Amino acid sequence: MITVTCLNTATKEISENCPVPDISDLRQNPQHVIWADVSDPTSQDFTDLAEEFDFHHLSIEDCRNEHQRPKVEEYSGYYFIVLYEASLVGPNDVLELRELNIFLGKNYLVTVHSRPIRAIATARRLWEEWLDKSETGAGLLAYLLIDATVDDYLPLLDIISERMDDLEDSIFGEWRAAVIEEIFMIKKKLLYLRRAITPLRDVFNTLLRREQPIFPRETHVYFQDVFDHLIRVADNIDTLRDMLSSTMDAYLSVSGNRMNKVMKRLTSVSTILMSVTLIAGIYGMNFVFMPELRWRYGYVFALLSIVAVGVALYAYLKKVDWL
Amino acid sequence: MITVTCLNTATKEISENCPVPDISDLRQNPQHVIWADVSDPTSQDFTDLAEEFDFHHLSIEDCRNEHQRPKVEEYSGYYFIVLYEASLVGPNDVLELRELNIFLGKNYLVTVHSRPIRAIATARRLWEEWLDKSETGAGLLAYLLIDATVDDYLPLLDIISERMDDLEDSIFGEWRAAVIEEIFMIKKKLLYLRRAITPLRDVFNTLLRREQPIFPRETHVYFQDVFDHLIRVADNIDTLRDMLSSTMDAYLSVSGNRMNKVMKRLTSVSTILMSVTLIAGIYGMNFVFMPELRWRYGYVFALLSIVAVGVALYAYLKKVDWL
Amino acid sequence: MITVTCLNTATKEISENCPVPDISDLRQNPQHVIWADVSDPTSQDFTDLAEEFDFHHLSIEDCRNEHQRPKVEEYSGYYFIVLYEASLVGPNDVLELRELNIFLGKNYLVTVHSRPIRAIATARRLWEEWLDKSETGAGLLAYLLIDATVDDYLPLLDIISERMDDLEDSIFGEWRAAVIEEIFMIKKKLLYLRRAITPLRDVFNTLLRREQPIFPRETHVYFQDVFDHLIRVADNIDTLRDMLSSTMDAYLSVSGNRMNKVMKRLTSVSTILMSVTLIAGIYGMNFVFMPELRWRYGYVFALLSIVAVGVALYAYLKKVDWL
Amino acid sequence: MITVTCLNTATKEISENCPVPDISDLRQNPQHVIWADVSDPTSQDFTDLAEEFDFHHLSIEDCRNEHQRPKVEEYSGYYFIVLYEASLVGPNDVLELRELNIFLGKNYLVTVHSRPIRAIATARRLWEEWLDKSETGAGLLAYLLIDATVDDYLPLLDIISERMDDLEDSIFGEWRAAVIEEIFMIKKKLLYLRRAITPLRDVFNTLLRREQPIFPRETHVYFQDVFDHLIRVADNIDTLRDMLSSTMDAYLSVSGNRMNKVMKRLTSVSTILMSVTLIAGIYGMNFVFMPELRWRYGYVFALLSIVAVGVALYAYLKKVDWL
Amino acid sequence: MITVTCLNTATKEISENCPVPDISDLRQNPQHVIWADVSDPTSQDFTDLAEEFDFHHLSIEDCRNEHQRPKVEEYSGYYFIVLYEASLVGPNDVLELRELNIFLGKNYLVTVHSRPIRAIATARRLWEEWLDKSETGAGLLAYLLIDATVDDYLPLLDIISERMDDLEDSIFGEWRAAVIEEIFMIKKKLLYLRRAITPLRDVFNTLLRREQPIFPRETHVYFQDVFDHLIRVADNIDTLRDMLSSTMDAYLSVSGNRMNKVMKRLTSVSTILMSVTLIAGIYGMNFVFMPELRWRYGYVFALLSIVAVGVALYAYLKKVDWL
Repeated sequence: MITVTCLNTATKEISENCPVPDISDLRQNPQHVIWADVSDPTSQDFTDLAEEFDFHHLSIEDCRNEHQRPKVEEYSGYYFIVLYEASLVGPNDVLELRELNIFLGKNYLVTVHSRPIRAIATARRLWEEWLDKSETGAGLLAYLLIDATVDDYLPLLDIISERMDDLEDSIFGEWRAAVIEEIFMIKKKLLYLRRAITPLRDVFNTLLRREQPIFPRETHVYFQDVFDHLIRVADNIDTLRDMLSSTMDAYLSVSGNRMNKVMKRLTSVSTILMSVTLIAGIYGMNFVFMPELRWRYGYVFALLSIVAVGVALYAYLKKVDWL
Repeated sequence: MITVTCLNTATKEISENCPVPDISDLRQNPQHVIWADVSDPTSQDFTDLAEEFDFHHLSIEDCRNEHQRPKVEEYSGYYFIVLYEASLVGPNDVLELRELNIFLGKNYLVTVHSRPIRAIATARRLWEEWLDKSETGAGLLAYLLIDATVDDYLPLLDIISERMDDLEDSIFGEWRAAVIEEIFMIKKKLLYLRRAITPLRDVFNTLLRREQPIFPRETHVYFQDVFDHLIRVADNIDTLRDMLSSTMDAYLSVSGNRMNKVMKRLTSVSTILMSVTLIAGIYGMNFVFMPELRWRYGYVFALLSIVAVGVALYAYLKKVDWL
Repeated sequence: MITVTCLNTATKEISENCPVPDISDLRQNPQHVIWADVSDPTSQDFTDLAEEFDFHHLSIEDCRNEHQRPKVEEYSGYYFIVLYEASLVGPNDVLELRELNIFLGKNYLVTVHSRPIRAIATARRLWEEWLDKSETGAGLLAYLLIDATVDDYLPLLDIISERMDDLEDSIFGEWRAAVIEEIFMIKKKLLYLRRAITPLRDVFNTLLRREQPIFPRETHVYFQDVFDHLIRVADNIDTLRDMLSSTMDAYLSVSGNRMNKVMKRLTSVSTILMSVTLIAGIYGMNFVFMPELRWRYGYVFALLSIVAVGVALYAYLKKVDWL
Repeated sequence: MITVTCLNTATKEISENCPVPDISDLRQNPQHVIWADVSDPTSQDFTDLAEEFDFHHLSIEDCRNEHQRPKVEEYSGYYFIVLYEASLVGPNDVLELRELNIFLGKNYLVTVHSRPIRAIATARRLWEEWLDKSETGAGLLAYLLIDATVDDYLPLLDIISERMDDLEDSIFGEWRAAVIEEIFMIKKKLLYLRRAITPLRDVFNTLLRREQPIFPRETHVYFQDVFDHLIRVADNIDTLRDMLSSTMDAYLSVSGNRMNKVMKRLTSVSTILMSVTLIAGIYGMNFVFMPELRWRYGYVFALLSIVAVGVALYAYLKKVDWL
Repeated sequence: MITVTCLNTATKEISENCPVPDISDLRQNPQHVIWADVSDPTSQDFTDLAEEFDFHHLSIEDCRNEHQRPKVEEYSGYYFIVLYEASLVGPNDVLELRELNIFLGKNYLVTVHSRPIRAIATARRLWEEWLDKSETGAGLLAYLLIDATVDDYLPLLDIISERMDDLEDSIFGEWRAAVIEEIFMIKKKLLYLRRAITPLRDVFNTLLRREQPIFPRETHVYFQDVFDHLIRVADNIDTLRDMLSSTMDAYLSVSGNRMNKVMKRLTSVSTILMSVTLIAGIYGMNFVFMPELRWRYGYVFALLSIVAVGVALYAYLKKVDWL
């Protein structure tokens, strides 16, 4: 489905749901900024787009085949941008990455996506709010859309960060054994998030450092801002990864220590039991001449020996901290 | 065996199986694009190639000696490209890398390979399909061939990715011990795939950033596309490697935990058995004066003690989660 | 709350607590250097600032939303700088990072912070002391402020370094088990400190290498000095991180060794006990014909055997260092 | 000992064993290419060289003191190159690195080495074979020599690679315990090989990327070839290192698993033995009223109980895979 | 204490212990090269230096506060260089890094240090010896001083390398347990040495690659030589670090293997003892009808059973290599 919105930068009027066939006419007027949002595109939609905007067949191909890398590609007359919106869905917080393809031309923006993208509504709303700003072209619109997408990663990272605090508490506080699987799952999420962000960061870095800026002077500062947010998200992800590997190390050490303590204790107890069993064994020997056996309180003496040896060993092992 | 195909870019006609001796004549006409595919080359073939196309003896040498690094080298008048096609063969999914040497000149493409290359058929088919595109030169043909080779890595990586999901399931779900060997084998495969891709990626990166592009303007966008696919494959490999090392870590931790649990249990059971054996040992002592021995229900009492102590210890150890 | 201080570079006089509405007038005179310190800013303060100094709304936005990355951004007419002051607070030495936003213009400096910043007092004091230096502009003031902030990291790192020496002593000297948690906490602190410093270092690196220096020639050497201190702090942090991971490795090895020793000992003792128990078990057999049982000193002989076997095994195990 | 060989590039005649004093005269004629090979140099040789060819005293110093880093240094009028030939010697395959110093001037090549260098004979032979090539200067000779040295690393790496395959077999197949020491020794070898190759690779990378090529146009392609071989060797080394660390990981995991299995088994057997010993212990108690003791088949019953309990436990432990 | 030495480059005469107040006059003559060595500087010395040579107060500040990073800073008219001399002192080979500050001007060199620096004597001696070289300016003097300092690291690294060979022997040969602490101490030393060298290497790299060389053409080759030595030292340190971590890995593996062997043995012995104890336990049962008990050689039979079972188990466990 194609939804076309058009802004007259002179009158600052936004007309919604323009008919698709009008696009060609609207584009002729450089005062118009056109946003064509294509959701759940059909094969026909792709053909129409390629024809109407004269998109290169390679970029249309990339758009058609999902699972592209996040990227910014320069074609003659427009930029082709691929990025991903992220969210945690379902009761198990499964990470979902939704692809958003953007064609950014002089005075138009075409967005293509097969799943609903939250950032589109946000950008739509801010577009209207920012009408009073001096800059109102397609570049600003692209900025609003990309920035909304990128900023959406931060609350998600906050959730992951909180999970990791929980994990940490359970390592140094009340022990839970299933920590490894949780660490593994978070690691995987961070890996996917990283893959969705760092290529974009690198591309923006290159784009912004170029001698002749690809964005008009006025919007340059906005894309600098997007870049700043991309670095921030990427840095956050890296910090979380570092932290996670520290947490993993801590888990392994603490887990090893706990196990060691248990084994030391159990083996110490075994040693005590063996020692006292030896006493019982000795008085179980069948020698004819064993004076103690005939003592009045021989049995009591043996039992007391058993207790005494047990207690002494216990105290000793406690002291050397093996128990 | 040398197979020569010739495209007349003016008439858009492809003539197959041109006689080898005609190459010299065909090359004179810049409208012709010639593709000479040399499979299983003989020593004579190399000499003929070097003479006909005036190839530098170093590039012929590289072609003759297999196991070159993937690379793009610039010689006067042509590029010499080495790349590898990958596939998993046999019941054990052994990784096979098949070398493909490409000489890319102004209006000719020479491919040399000692084993059959799937991408050649693909490129041949697409060449015909794309005849209506504006660009039809040797550069486009090279693009089709390289892209077909590179894209072939993706399904292979998908297979490896599925294997890794299986491994993960077997780690956190139903346990299989042979996971290490599988991880090791996948690691090795990824290492070889990486070696076959990353040098190409780096070379393309350098080639595409040059001030004066080595490819004509029109084909530049195609090689940009190959570069994009190379990055995508390389990124996928890196992600799989990261994931694999996480999987390895998880395996080791879970394996350690399972072992620890078993040892804790066995040692706990030992402790219980030792404790009750002590009781038996005590009543096996031969003291003359041991009142219990003469009790009517002494034996029953002893057996009950054994059971009681055993159950109590079992309950305790269960509670502290050592059993 | 806004506190305005103004220096007349001609007369070298500093007037404190200038009324806020005078800022506009004061700014007109290029001989004046104005420092407006905004602590605990209200929404109104931000609006006033933006209006008075004509700050870009993106920089005001960054100022309003805390938790920005440390950075230096170039806007038309001024630089926007974010950095963090660090200190350890409370009995548990919790790391606190306090954000400081700086707007550095031609002849003014605006500092915005929601928590008290120690470096502000230091910079204020040094400003006065350095009045006799040739350079007295806003750049120098920014230098004093940034340098005071950066230098403040060094004593903090010294404290952490001392902690680590303690940890090391407790690993190779008198053993403390809780080392892991301390290592983990220090690691986390270093991670946060690193995040607060390295982005600044990288930005300064870029700024100082530019063809056309952003700071006037005279202050360039000062910012070179800040950069030098930033590298020093960052290097210190990296060294501490390296050291910490060595300490962690050492802890794990030493801890493993200690545990191994204990287990070897306990198991060796078990072996001794089992051996002597076997002797007791043998003489506890009920055979009718067992000559030793009838010996006069059979019992003594058995006890001596037990002692002899025990001592011999003990000596042997001691010799092979298993005990 | 100094051996001087001289090529007249006009007549393509090589004169061997030219008298040393003639060097000065021969050098005057730019058509001559002179190769002075100094093996086992004396102090006098160094003085003579410095005087005859006007070598800078720093390069002579480097030549005199062995154990330099592999490098290419530019002096006025000549290049000074240090590289290492590698081979495995003796029954224990000790890695030997033999230093080769090369002075490459306009029309002369001076090689200095204190141990015999295989590559010199190879280069000497190829020099003659390549006389028909258009390029015959000192640059080509240097290429032949360096390339022979670098190519010599490949069979050596193949040997190491085969060793590693053996190691791998012994890890996943029939177990050998001494794997660690072998891994350690290979690691050390790879480390030294890496040190001998990567500095050269980096220097060539810089030299070949320079705006104004240091080698004449015609030989540039040859040095590009050397660079390609250097990368190939360095890549091979890195791949082997990666593989080796995987092998080490695999060894540790498999070794850990084997140990765990053994301990589980032994402890399981202990548990079985303790259980049945308990039965014997019970019937060894001395209670007066123990009906079983008087049973006709009490003994048989006890023995059967022992066997039954033993078998049952064995079966159970086998089922849960602890035995 | 300030010691001033002055070389007249025209007459090649060195005058020692020139009076401090003469410096100003001597500096006027560009033929003079002045070396002012300030050891154990007082506050007054710093003030004098700053005044006499017009040093920037930031560089004087750096000089005053010890523990700077090694660095080379460019001030107007001179370079300020900080480097460290290293040596192992005392019976425990504690690493000592002694700071040396150098001010390098057109025709003067000022060295400031609070502890005695060996390299100063070396440089002094070589200065005289090299008087016959064409280049005799302050740059050469700086070269001699820096090179003497840097070269001093090599014997120190050789000592560390020998220690590591000892460690290796003790790991694979006769075992010593205290290896971890030694490894840790060497690691720390290498970390500090690295910190003292790599910043210098990086600075020299930048300085030497600059378009317009900071050193005059003639001395450039000397500083190239210092850079080469810096790389060599840094490479050596990195190699030692790599080796050390291999040694650590080897230690852990071998240590783990040894422990495993001991535990396997001890547990195997336990199993044997338990088995034979079972036999004794069986014949210790009090059944009325136990035919063996009445056998003539029942006791001998039992003892033989015990021995037989023990030997059989021992042989079995030996065969499966658990003992």
